[in-house]
Amino acid sequence: MKLRDVGEFGLIDRVARRVARTRAGGARPVLGIGDDAALLRARADEDVAVSTDACVEGVHFRWDAAAPATIGRRAAAAALSDLAAMGARPLGMTIALAAPPAADLARIEALLGGVITQAARAETPVVGGNVTRSRQVSLTLTAIGAVVRGRALRRDAARVGDRILVTGQLGAAAFDRVRAQREKVRGKYVPEPRLAVGRRLARLRGVGACIDVSDGLVADLHHLLRASGVGAAFDEARVPQPRGFPAKCRRLGVDPRKLALHGGEDYELLFTLRPGAPQVAQLGRRWGIALAEIGRVTPPNPRTPGKPSGWRHF
Amino acid sequence: MKLRDVGEFGLIDRVARRVARTRAGGARPVLGIGDDAALLRARADEDVAVSTDACVEGVHFRWDAAAPATIGRRAAAAALSDLAAMGARPLGMTIALAAPPAADLARIEALLGGVITQAARAETPVVGGNVTRSRQVSLTLTAIGAVVRGRALRRDAARVGDRILVTGQLGAAAFDRVRAQREKVRGKYVPEPRLAVGRRLARLRGVGACIDVSDGLVADLHHLLRASGVGAAFDEARVPQPRGFPAKCRRLGVDPRKLALHGGEDYELLFTLRPGAPQVAQLGRRWGIALAEIGRVTPPNPRTPGKPSGWRHF
Repeated sequence: MKLRDVGEFGLIDRVARRVARTRAGGARPVLGIGDDAALLRARADEDVAVSTDACVEGVHFRWDAAAPATIGRRAAAAALSDLAAMGARPLGMTIALAAPPAADLARIEALLGGVITQAARAETPVVGGNVTRSRQVSLTLTAIGAVVRGRALRRDAARVGDRILVTGQLGAAAFDRVRAQREKVRGKYVPEPRLAVGRRLARLRGVGACIDVSDGLVADLHHLLRASGVGAAFDEARVPQPRGFPAKCRRLGVDPRKLALHGGEDYELLFTLRPGAPQVAQLGRRWGIALAEIGRVTPPNPRTPGKPSGWRHF
Repeated sequence: MKLRDVGEFGLIDRVARRVARTRAGGARPVLGIGDDAALLRARADEDVAVSTDACVEGVHFRWDAAAPATIGRRAAAAALSDLAAMGARPLGMTIALAAPPAADLARIEALLGGVITQAARAETPVVGGNVTRSRQVSLTLTAIGAVVRGRALRRDAARVGDRILVTGQLGAAAFDRVRAQREKVRGKYVPEPRLAVGRRLARLRGVGACIDVSDGLVADLHHLLRASGVGAAFDEARVPQPRGFPAKCRRLGVDPRKLALHGGEDYELLFTLRPGAPQVAQLGRRWGIALAEIGRVTPPNPRTPGKPSGWRHF
């Protein structure tokens, strides 16, 4: 069956039924799919965080490189990660789908099902969206969240002397991408946006700046430093890689360091802490997650502002 | 100059500068373009309204049928109209642009400039977005607003006995579209979303259901009736047309009635009022706008639920 066989309103009905079947937990919309706009409710002491992210066939994904549901789940994870990086709790997500009328309906439903499933894992209800014709399939997701006023995590809040930390490990997403391509298999990796850590960070006394690792550690560190008007010394050797990563990469003939530093789509949180904030080991234990300190914020390098200098010794 | 010459971040910088130069008035974002998410602030007694709308080259617009700035302004008007139809005041808008790297930079900037300008007319700041490559140009706009809790206008609130009203006149947008096509000129018409009327309606005692006229009066009345589980008797002859419309349509060889009933993209508000609500003439005077009563809500037609029956006599 093709998309054109059910049409715009038929697809919206199917999505609405799927959303109704998928219990998202967490915040419930005041009004979901079906009206001119969705209605969401933040608390009186919260601001509303909004982020839009697009994912285009042939640019961000290929049908032969991952299952449609995996593509949808990755897109949702990427959109929700922006809320994590602000320290926000999700209130809802809208899905704008563009697709050719001749697109396979089952594939499109699996794609959207992936978005709905991944959003539900993060307690995020799908509350609306849009369906339109186009030549290429694309998903534009808007994540809406709520964050306590004055506590939102920002890119521009790093100060000289801050420690630079990153959650989890880096490189697995890029490894999965490269492996799928080389071995002509479908990639299966779906990152988990760090929503709980983001919310804890937002409440932490002594937190500095924060960004999620979407473009790659070095690129995103660069964004954070540039926004804050500072520089950094960072130790590549301390960038955490998954267990057994060098050996796995060797077998595939790729450089583990390159994947960890530049791979992207890890959706870990990269953040800074003031000198007086808790130590990394203490925080990692308290939050039950892996945390690594990878460098320190320095005055800006006047020639290349925001550019981290390599730094191999702590 | 091509889009690829400035790249994703170059275009975002240009948009951010343009937004900074354009004073939107109204609500100011807590945090605008440049971080992982924008931050907006509603009042403690308000819910957040979110609506996403897409506009695709070759589907919703053609470059030879309107200037790029006009296309952008129309897209913004359409997105904001969804807030009007909920009775919400705008808090912000995000722009997701997809475009080929070889796209003409000036054209893309004019397109986005149109969005920014039209949003500013409605006191709506552009607070963020996304830029990606694609084969076709598309704009996906998400409008975020705030509406007093429990006062949001909904499609599903019409009741038997309600009067059916519509703001302004219908048909001008479709006329402009047809004329541009026939005379091989660029269309100039930009609808004005009915934000002020929407907010007044949301506060009005005795308001019923509301929807904006995007697909065409008959289609949108159908949506409203179906959502409310009711039917309607409506008088085509009372559907308001612009002054001198029949003569203009005759010269172009089109049916004015068809454009007014089915043309779409008028972005007037179609709403119902309980029997005890003010009379149409009184409301029109109070609000300083044209208002027409075009029918009445009836029990549903069991064979075609939500289908308005023609009704030529009041």
